[in-house]
Amino acid sequence: MKRTMAACLALSWAGASLAQSGLIVSGGLDLAVAHYKGEGGGSRTQLISGGNQNSRLNIRGREDLGGGWYAGFELEAGIAADTGAGLASNTNNQVSGIVPAGSGNVPSLTFNRRSIVGIGGEWGELRLGRDYVPSFWPIYLYDPFRTGVGFGGITILGTTVTNLRASNSIGYFTPGCDAVCKGPFAQLMYALGENGSGSAAPDDGRVAGLRLGYGAPTWEVSIARSKTTSAAVADFTQTSGGGFLETKWARLMLLVGENRTGRPVAPLNNGTRAPFWQLGALVYLPVGYVPVAYTRVTRNDPDSSSASKISFGYVYPLSKRTAVYTTYARIANKNALAIPVNVGADSGPTPEAGRGASGWDVGLRLTF
Amino acid sequence: MKRTMAACLALSWAGASLAQSGLIVSGGLDLAVAHYKGEGGGSRTQLISGGNQNSRLNIRGREDLGGGWYAGFELEAGIAADTGAGLASNTNNQVSGIVPAGSGNVPSLTFNRRSIVGIGGEWGELRLGRDYVPSFWPIYLYDPFRTGVGFGGITILGTTVTNLRASNSIGYFTPGCDAVCKGPFAQLMYALGENGSGSAAPDDGRVAGLRLGYGAPTWEVSIARSKTTSAAVADFTQTSGGGFLETKWARLMLLVGENRTGRPVAPLNNGTRAPFWQLGALVYLPVGYVPVAYTRVTRNDPDSSSASKISFGYVYPLSKRTAVYTTYARIANKNALAIPVNVGADSGPTPEAGRGASGWDVGLRLTF
Amino acid sequence: MKRTMAACLALSWAGASLAQSGLIVSGGLDLAVAHYKGEGGGSRTQLISGGNQNSRLNIRGREDLGGGWYAGFELEAGIAADTGAGLASNTNNQVSGIVPAGSGNVPSLTFNRRSIVGIGGEWGELRLGRDYVPSFWPIYLYDPFRTGVGFGGITILGTTVTNLRASNSIGYFTPGCDAVCKGPFAQLMYALGENGSGSAAPDDGRVAGLRLGYGAPTWEVSIARSKTTSAAVADFTQTSGGGFLETKWARLMLLVGENRTGRPVAPLNNGTRAPFWQLGALVYLPVGYVPVAYTRVTRNDPDSSSASKISFGYVYPLSKRTAVYTTYARIANKNALAIPVNVGADSGPTPEAGRGASGWDVGLRLTF
Repeated sequence: MKRTMAACLALSWAGASLAQSGLIVSGGLDLAVAHYKGEGGGSRTQLISGGNQNSRLNIRGREDLGGGWYAGFELEAGIAADTGAGLASNTNNQVSGIVPAGSGNVPSLTFNRRSIVGIGGEWGELRLGRDYVPSFWPIYLYDPFRTGVGFGGITILGTTVTNLRASNSIGYFTPGCDAVCKGPFAQLMYALGENGSGSAAPDDGRVAGLRLGYGAPTWEVSIARSKTTSAAVADFTQTSGGGFLETKWARLMLLVGENRTGRPVAPLNNGTRAPFWQLGALVYLPVGYVPVAYTRVTRNDPDSSSASKISFGYVYPLSKRTAVYTTYARIANKNALAIPVNVGADSGPTPEAGRGASGWDVGLRLTF
Repeated sequence: MKRTMAACLALSWAGASLAQSGLIVSGGLDLAVAHYKGEGGGSRTQLISGGNQNSRLNIRGREDLGGGWYAGFELEAGIAADTGAGLASNTNNQVSGIVPAGSGNVPSLTFNRRSIVGIGGEWGELRLGRDYVPSFWPIYLYDPFRTGVGFGGITILGTTVTNLRASNSIGYFTPGCDAVCKGPFAQLMYALGENGSGSAAPDDGRVAGLRLGYGAPTWEVSIARSKTTSAAVADFTQTSGGGFLETKWARLMLLVGENRTGRPVAPLNNGTRAPFWQLGALVYLPVGYVPVAYTRVTRNDPDSSSASKISFGYVYPLSKRTAVYTTYARIANKNALAIPVNVGADSGPTPEAGRGASGWDVGLRLTF
Repeated sequence: MKRTMAACLALSWAGASLAQSGLIVSGGLDLAVAHYKGEGGGSRTQLISGGNQNSRLNIRGREDLGGGWYAGFELEAGIAADTGAGLASNTNNQVSGIVPAGSGNVPSLTFNRRSIVGIGGEWGELRLGRDYVPSFWPIYLYDPFRTGVGFGGITILGTTVTNLRASNSIGYFTPGCDAVCKGPFAQLMYALGENGSGSAAPDDGRVAGLRLGYGAPTWEVSIARSKTTSAAVADFTQTSGGGFLETKWARLMLLVGENRTGRPVAPLNNGTRAPFWQLGALVYLPVGYVPVAYTRVTRNDPDSSSASKISFGYVYPLSKRTAVYTTYARIANKNALAIPVNVGADSGPTPEAGRGASGWDVGLRLTF
């Protein structure tokens, strides 16, 4: 090893080739034509990226270290496939840290979806980097849509930058666990906001989270909570839980949870609490399947505001890797709420408060 | 398929490896030393990216779906190889949508050159995403230079963001057709500006285009038009057509067309119309070839303004994938026109109105 | 070749597959938990990218042209692995040219670390693009840490954008030479600032550099100088030299040099000159090795300002490609100097002038 110290960092393409051991490049692209209406807010037709599956490019690898130990990494860049642009990451889990600076929903490329190194063994896995917060997984795994027009999470997600992921995180997973886990499992995350001790809010951007669950061959249950110390919205606590049951004719899903902040947060404008629940299913047909969901969110400030969303679609597989799909969703807002059907750069127009919104898409998704 | 629903979106590198079936990574890099003069505007020496071939990184794949059907994708990032930076994309085919926001010609990486998914069969191919507008192809295919100092298109291209490509597009191609097509062929494009129905200009950024042609083994003819509904320059209509004839000693090329806008557009500052034509050839030598072109553009406002460009070069192949080249070009502006020899981040200095400009480069291009 | 002219630029994934001959994708990721203290400046805990080895993604290729000639390329993107974001490049070797515009240390992805094409043979190698300046290599090669908490270069590097790399460069290397060279070797670089002849500072951003050395199986010596013509800090001249000696139990390293500017430059605030020297070693243990270094920098304005840094660590290899490590460093500032332990986005808090700073990290690095 000694004589290779200098060479191991050498950058020369004039030298010998590195082995590409363990490197995997994969990804998925999904584009759909979507049409949205928001009552009192007009209509909008768009080409949207990720109507059924988020568009992304993934590079990962894994090395066997012997004795049951392994090391690995994963880099995943979100792609706004309708434009070829990327999606934003964040340096400090604070609103000030959005990367690229000043970018909205469609900036240039970053590995915003995941940037991790890890080491694991029979004891589980330790990870460093940017990763999903624990409370994201139930919201994702127990939603039949997961993204796009039908996604129930749009009524659930607040506006903090740590809804989905946190940078600067240290994570622990029980053995063999990532998104999908078997047997009893746990995920812990602690992410650093990285403010100095002398700053006005030293803990701003700190995230602490826990997910606990049990994964069986035909069902799974889990519960999770992530708390972000945030100067912008006071502390933000996302709680989620639920499960699925696989049957011959359908995967049935239940999701319950609550977003809690110390100050009003758009789009819910929830003073303190916004509990939600969702019933969903993937109904298997002889060819393809039908995702369907009913989602309901309420909030306690102003009292009796609520929104209910009905979503259904059809996914027709052209192969194991490719499918065409269509989705329809309608949201009914009550009192102060004004939630559109989709979120982000590909959202529909915002309806007037207390009024409805609807949308449909037709798209093509593929994985590679 | 049923039980793999959850797993198909799982991101774990702790799990099994995805097959890399059909994934192709390729690209090209081209760097040249260029020296420019603009009469009354001084001189400039630069390292330019894409003197002979645009620098890019390409990821694509294709899956056979059976029955003559296939699905595929392509992501292509332009690279400013002199700096390692990227090139801009656009979210809405409007000036306001340049990505990254506020970037000039050299921003960070995006898949600005292409970001598409498609599905095809004997009936042709349907595509979604960011792709070349139909009227680009004649301007590109019938120009012996296509980029760099010698590129005739610099006298042709206006300043709208949809000169070359459009985001949010829906495209149709006759079977087996992309840049190069065989037999009678057609390309249709309709791209969405994505403004809401209540916006001041609901159709801003909408692009509609058509290309028709015939490709034979030794010749091709085609004609195309792309119209962008644009609030910034009123509607922008680019018409282009021409063809090539392959002989033993040369590929002969003819290109004609017109840029038409409702308001003045730099660098042509054409009130309404700027017709152009170009005669070009790739003259084959025993080793290598000589690209040569004469390009002329006129405009009707102010009357009798015009520019003529003479370009010639030499490309010496070192292998099928690698070549060295040199180019020289001179442009003569008349009256109000002040067109430099090259465009973008690697342009020469702008001459005074009505005066000439010239430039040369020496470069190395390779593909991988 | 003639009939393939048009096809060679065609972008169609509907066509035949390109061969991936010679393309290599590799890289490295490194993340560590770091804690910093700066006396009078507080403390800070961070997840840092590149505690032991800079995080990066590399794409390169090489083609044999026959007769001993070859062509090749290298694209390398720096990754802020704690966030998945990228690092900045520069268009013109001037402060105005930072890409993405307005970005700090953590922007979106660019091939900031290297973007080169080259051609070589028995006569050496000619390169174009963005590459390391000659005076960087001794500072990197003769430092046992090279990055992170222990890096001696933080007391050395000024703030010009050409400390490490220059865009728009033309380079020459003696045969078989890149970072690590054998026998007598030389590297020349000339990089263009690309300002026009009529600009206020036509030569701003121009870099000229030379490195000379001799590489033996167990030792190496080299000396280098890079001069940047800079309107921002007047001319910036970086001189570096030193060598290493490989023994059974250690690699011993010596580094000496000087940064020289015409005007004050933070963090050294050196009016004109800041000479430095460093003694370092990689001490080989039965398992793993201990990097250790003592670095001292002085400056002549104000007189008798200085800083001394002691760094040591331990690197424990888990395989040839993966290691865990820890580092500790302490810096003592005298008089006007106020240098923190690390630099960039992952720096520790700046101490008060004349006071000390310290830091440690624990991390995981892997290459792929």
